[in-house]
Amino acid sequence: MPIGSALWRSLRAYQVYGANTDVGKTIMATLLCRALERRFPGEGVWYLKPVSTGLREEADDRHVARFSGSSTHCLFQFDEPVSPHIAARPFRLPPDSSILQKIFTQLSDYASISPGTVLLETAGGVHSPTPSGTSQADFYRPLRLPVVFVADHRLGGVSTSVSAFESLHMRGYDVDSVMLFRDTRYQNDEYLSEFFKNHGISTFSLPSPPVRRDCAREDGEAMAEYYERVTKLDEVDEMISLSVTRHKARVESLETLANRANKHIWYPFTQHGDMSPSSIMAIDSAHGDFFQTCKPNPSGRTLEASTLIQPTFDGSASWWTQGLGHANPTLSLAASYAAGRYGHVMFAGGIHEPALSLAELLLKAINNPRLQRVFYSDNGSSGMEIAIKMGLRAASVRYGWGGDSCSGSGEEVGILGLKGSYHGDTLGAMDCSEPSAFNRKVEWYRGRGFWFDYPRVKMIKGTWVVEPPEGLEDELGPGASFASLGAVFDVEARKRSCRDRSYKKYILSTLERLIKEERKRFGALVMEPVVLGAGGMVLVDPLFQHTLATVIRSTPRLFPPSSSPSPLPLNTWTGIPIITDEVFTGLYRLGRPASSSFLHIHPDISVYAKLLTGGLVPLCATAASESVFEAFLGEGKESALLHGHSYTAHAVGCKVAEVAVRELAGMEEAWKGFRKDWLEGTSRASSTEPEVWSHWSKNFVGELSHAKDVESVIAIGSILAISLHDHTGAGYTSTAANAVQKKLFSSTRANWNIHARVLGNVLYLMASQTASEETIRAVEGVMRDVLL
Amino acid sequence: MPIGSALWRSLRAYQVYGANTDVGKTIMATLLCRALERRFPGEGVWYLKPVSTGLREEADDRHVARFSGSSTHCLFQFDEPVSPHIAARPFRLPPDSSILQKIFTQLSDYASISPGTVLLETAGGVHSPTPSGTSQADFYRPLRLPVVFVADHRLGGVSTSVSAFESLHMRGYDVDSVMLFRDTRYQNDEYLSEFFKNHGISTFSLPSPPVRRDCAREDGEAMAEYYERVTKLDEVDEMISLSVTRHKARVESLETLANRANKHIWYPFTQHGDMSPSSIMAIDSAHGDFFQTCKPNPSGRTLEASTLIQPTFDGSASWWTQGLGHANPTLSLAASYAAGRYGHVMFAGGIHEPALSLAELLLKAINNPRLQRVFYSDNGSSGMEIAIKMGLRAASVRYGWGGDSCSGSGEEVGILGLKGSYHGDTLGAMDCSEPSAFNRKVEWYRGRGFWFDYPRVKMIKGTWVVEPPEGLEDELGPGASFASLGAVFDVEARKRSCRDRSYKKYILSTLERLIKEERKRFGALVMEPVVLGAGGMVLVDPLFQHTLATVIRSTPRLFPPSSSPSPLPLNTWTGIPIITDEVFTGLYRLGRPASSSFLHIHPDISVYAKLLTGGLVPLCATAASESVFEAFLGEGKESALLHGHSYTAHAVGCKVAEVAVRELAGMEEAWKGFRKDWLEGTSRASSTEPEVWSHWSKNFVGELSHAKDVESVIAIGSILAISLHDHTGAGYTSTAANAVQKKLFSSTRANWNIHARVLGNVLYLMASQTASEETIRAVEGVMRDVLL
Repeated sequence: MPIGSALWRSLRAYQVYGANTDVGKTIMATLLCRALERRFPGEGVWYLKPVSTGLREEADDRHVARFSGSSTHCLFQFDEPVSPHIAARPFRLPPDSSILQKIFTQLSDYASISPGTVLLETAGGVHSPTPSGTSQADFYRPLRLPVVFVADHRLGGVSTSVSAFESLHMRGYDVDSVMLFRDTRYQNDEYLSEFFKNHGISTFSLPSPPVRRDCAREDGEAMAEYYERVTKLDEVDEMISLSVTRHKARVESLETLANRANKHIWYPFTQHGDMSPSSIMAIDSAHGDFFQTCKPNPSGRTLEASTLIQPTFDGSASWWTQGLGHANPTLSLAASYAAGRYGHVMFAGGIHEPALSLAELLLKAINNPRLQRVFYSDNGSSGMEIAIKMGLRAASVRYGWGGDSCSGSGEEVGILGLKGSYHGDTLGAMDCSEPSAFNRKVEWYRGRGFWFDYPRVKMIKGTWVVEPPEGLEDELGPGASFASLGAVFDVEARKRSCRDRSYKKYILSTLERLIKEERKRFGALVMEPVVLGAGGMVLVDPLFQHTLATVIRSTPRLFPPSSSPSPLPLNTWTGIPIITDEVFTGLYRLGRPASSSFLHIHPDISVYAKLLTGGLVPLCATAASESVFEAFLGEGKESALLHGHSYTAHAVGCKVAEVAVRELAGMEEAWKGFRKDWLEGTSRASSTEPEVWSHWSKNFVGELSHAKDVESVIAIGSILAISLHDHTGAGYTSTAANAVQKKLFSSTRANWNIHARVLGNVLYLMASQTASEETIRAVEGVMRDVLL
Repeated sequence: MPIGSALWRSLRAYQVYGANTDVGKTIMATLLCRALERRFPGEGVWYLKPVSTGLREEADDRHVARFSGSSTHCLFQFDEPVSPHIAARPFRLPPDSSILQKIFTQLSDYASISPGTVLLETAGGVHSPTPSGTSQADFYRPLRLPVVFVADHRLGGVSTSVSAFESLHMRGYDVDSVMLFRDTRYQNDEYLSEFFKNHGISTFSLPSPPVRRDCAREDGEAMAEYYERVTKLDEVDEMISLSVTRHKARVESLETLANRANKHIWYPFTQHGDMSPSSIMAIDSAHGDFFQTCKPNPSGRTLEASTLIQPTFDGSASWWTQGLGHANPTLSLAASYAAGRYGHVMFAGGIHEPALSLAELLLKAINNPRLQRVFYSDNGSSGMEIAIKMGLRAASVRYGWGGDSCSGSGEEVGILGLKGSYHGDTLGAMDCSEPSAFNRKVEWYRGRGFWFDYPRVKMIKGTWVVEPPEGLEDELGPGASFASLGAVFDVEARKRSCRDRSYKKYILSTLERLIKEERKRFGALVMEPVVLGAGGMVLVDPLFQHTLATVIRSTPRLFPPSSSPSPLPLNTWTGIPIITDEVFTGLYRLGRPASSSFLHIHPDISVYAKLLTGGLVPLCATAASESVFEAFLGEGKESALLHGHSYTAHAVGCKVAEVAVRELAGMEEAWKGFRKDWLEGTSRASSTEPEVWSHWSKNFVGELSHAKDVESVIAIGSILAISLHDHTGAGYTSTAANAVQKKLFSSTRANWNIHARVLGNVLYLMASQTASEETIRAVEGVMRDVLL
């Protein structure tokens, strides 16, 4: 299970990385061991070589043991003096995660013995492969040990040292100090001292070791003399002092992070009145599905041997952004490539390859024949405002509503939506939501539109049901249960049901009342397809969303015919433009590129963000049909879509997104286990029944739905949402789920915990798209402990 | 002057980089030369070694010349076999830029001779220093030649090869193909083939060269035999075919970029009706202050020897974002570090070091004692909406205006601002602007507030004047001229003038009319300090902005006293909160961290974006006073500031910004020349007169102001704005500046051109904060040609 970052107050643990093989890592480690023994006689000094290749008698740990008094360990030893991935071939080794776990356990053991220092020496260079073939820099990254970097003193060593440093740096390692041998000819130490100084890192150059002799005894004597002499040098002592200082500083910085934040940070969506430093989670780093968070240690000294950092499952996928896991090196590399090729280049009237490639890829992935144009922005809220501007203008132009907003001559045009929808925090996006706790105190908020109530899908006590909203049972039909979630999503089959007819009738009569009787104007239908996120993770009956869109598109009497009598070209929007807000549900959250495909509709405008960059940087894409685009064509600038942020289509975001979308599209194989769990053994009720599945196991979801405190559950794609009984009816301001949230966070099972977010009485969990079955099942285990 | 990216249709130019020294770059180059000669007998094959160290007779170019028929050149040869930065010490070499120019010229020469291929071989590894000490990877980056990467076949070579590749990749190089020697023991070729395949790159492993012999003749014979044999191998031929294909594909992709963009991209602030592929600028890469853009080549074959790419001065600093130049490796590295350490981690209730460090650094840099809290968002528009929400709520709470927006019970609260202000494109930010061409057709726009007209500062025919707006000469006083721009900004001295008294009187009477007579409510003063950007680069009289803020803060009768009778603590806002929108002018655009400091006021809320990340990724910080913050304290979530984007405080943005702000703050030395030009020899009229200067030279600005077509000019910090005579009065929709814009873009002086943006009849130029005097003066030269 998750590996923790290795940080203890009493144990200083360093990882010795080399710029290349044969740069003197072991000699430097030996020197440091000796110097530490000398400096801290009462403390432990350990040397750990996880993987060693080459003859046992010449192995690095033997060398350290021979020339120092430190305790040494080697976990895997292969005789062949080649890279571990070749040397290990004849053997069957445990998977990477168990090896890393073993290393972490070994470090923890040292910490439990006494205060002291451990040096973990890697094999070869930073990217030398581990036995499984993973690069060491990636393999060891979860521990994120501070690095003692041994630079290369030889010809060419400036280059290999700088590159190796960059490889570590871009994986989020902190290089604590640099050591290398002094070489008067190549003088790499001089160049590199200056280079590392610019990165705030001190370099220590030491005398070269004696030249290797043929006679083992002489060689040993020469080395002994070398160690005796060099151990006592001021540089070595200084380096140890610096390491001690930096270790203390790291601990202190981590432990004061929350206090300092409490003074200067104004948090999003947070009532600071309830806040104290202890309620702020200090995040040291993150990896995969886990944060590495500062473990509160109120009792002080007694727990010194325990780690200061614990893995915390990122149960909201960091506000719904994480698709490919934290600190994904593929995304870091993509980001740095775009930064190095372009930085950011302005986008109005210009084009760069990442922006275009992403647009083409995205349009292909979402596979909606209507969508032909991509408009970039920075976040879902901005992207939704753009979508609204597009939709309203298209309707206004076609129906001749084109008033001048400045003079106030135009009549108000609103949107049609669903109750509980949420589209973002900027004002135009807020105005698309009905009045609620989110906007009650926003001075300029003004809901503009009409919001339909709708039947909800949920699992209650083991059964999937479609439940009409209170008071609408007569119009929309009574609650109904289904054999599977797939059957609920079988829109094709359900379209022939009498329920579909009631939906149609209800929608039509409501629209006729609003438009014909109340003389209201609507310029767009705006929907989050399938799941309403911020509104409480509500699973909407897909048939209702399908029918709503269909009625709007196919009832010309609701909207006056276009003034132009010419027949509309194919793919032209009818009724009013349909906008799907796929910021939350789009791009494989539910296992499909476009979640509107569950509704069997092709929207005219569709908005993607969050998962778009796999979870690294903000970016949003609003895709639109040519038919909507054409409403903005004209001669002057005034009729253009006058929207555009400075960093529109920033190259870093576009390149990262291009890589992320490709990676997400290639996840089918990784999801096989999840799909199997949901789909195997179930008989489909009709040939049109789609495959609907979740990362969260079918049994687990069923069990949860029977729990005492649970009203209902939904699970689809990577989303799990648990609605708890809420007797206060406080909605978003309810605190029903807070007790569960607290228990998950304070769970100490296996040294990790869960950070979950709540929306009123709903507690949800969300994994990244790359989360492993092992991780998900382990989280389910903790949930069972807490809720069942 | 600017170095172009080296791309020709008829010349295939490659750069040979090695993973380390001694990995066989020269042997690979020789093999390729021979194979090219064989494959394309009628074409040129050139080998260029810009810098060589070691004995002349053993130099790489001699080796290539000896074993192939190719034409070879070496530009700098040093006998000592050490890194060039050491070997070159005794010599006085030209600066990096001239050496690079020389290399570019050499490549161009080849291109002018005949079609063919050139291999430019680097020295040592990718980061080996050039004679000046710059890393090769950085030095050669402007050329951005496709790379033939020679990997390391030796023990440890996997690591050095992967790291060296990452160093190239993060600088935006495209590695075209990988070559290395086959080594049956270490099998690096096997591992690396797989690694590079995952990056879409083909690897070619070739037989090892013969072991070096003592006898020179035998050695030569063995090498000749080796070359003879290996040149003919299928792998070598295949590699050449691939390179040819990739070269063609690169050219084609670049030349079709605009066409493809025209189909799928919906551009910001762009009227697509006027657009064609030929009006889209295809950007291949960017470096420093220059884009590298595709040069249109309508006449086809006749120009084959000319480059397909030209440097284009980024005259809008990419929509006002560029502070530290495009593709700045320091920023790329910072971005990749944060990506590797965190990815993105959710921010509500969590803290990570880059977000906190940036907040602390920013508050320190802007040095406004009122500002204590930082709220992060993604762009200036969102950040301004947040500021507005803050300001309006603070006022509403204090004055008891707290209506419920949902029920519509609250009375409308507006803002006070300046005519022509622009704060962003999301609806709430738009509503802060008066009606204009930007918002006329936005269905939901509704200006909410009152906008003051104000005196403008401009240089007319060599003199700085303060000009009252038309019709307000009586109230605000007649136009006045000043000895220097510094004198205009001498707010302390001017505060004692009668002009200040007229400003006060005018402002006060206007506010009394609005508030007392018209019963309007205002919740915040919102201003872009000093320069109104999107409104047309208008330089506002700083005294007017100062007085406006002062009157609002110090006239209690305008705003009913607080219901709480207790004395207000220090730093509490008075009147209404003052918001400065420093998105454009802040963070050293005008040479100072906070441009509000020019106005001698400390705003209560201040918004920073654009330059915040030095120009790499979107990020915005809204800084607020504790006094504003406290208005949101309460018990429930409802009174919190319910705003927050998914990527709030994304680690990449925060880390990049932290580095960028530090770099910007350290620019004083680099700006010495610019300051000297403006300040030296001028006598200050008073002891309070501030130093106001620009990147654009004083003489040049003076000259421009006398030009026939020029109405007036402003220059401050990195901004130069030229107001052209506009007899149509069309404002933002004017096309007066378009002719100049076209001339700058089509200027072919010295093989580079200028991309400038216009705002109606105003054409502006803006350099990054790191732009060199050489660059600025060269741009001025082109401007002189066009305008004088």
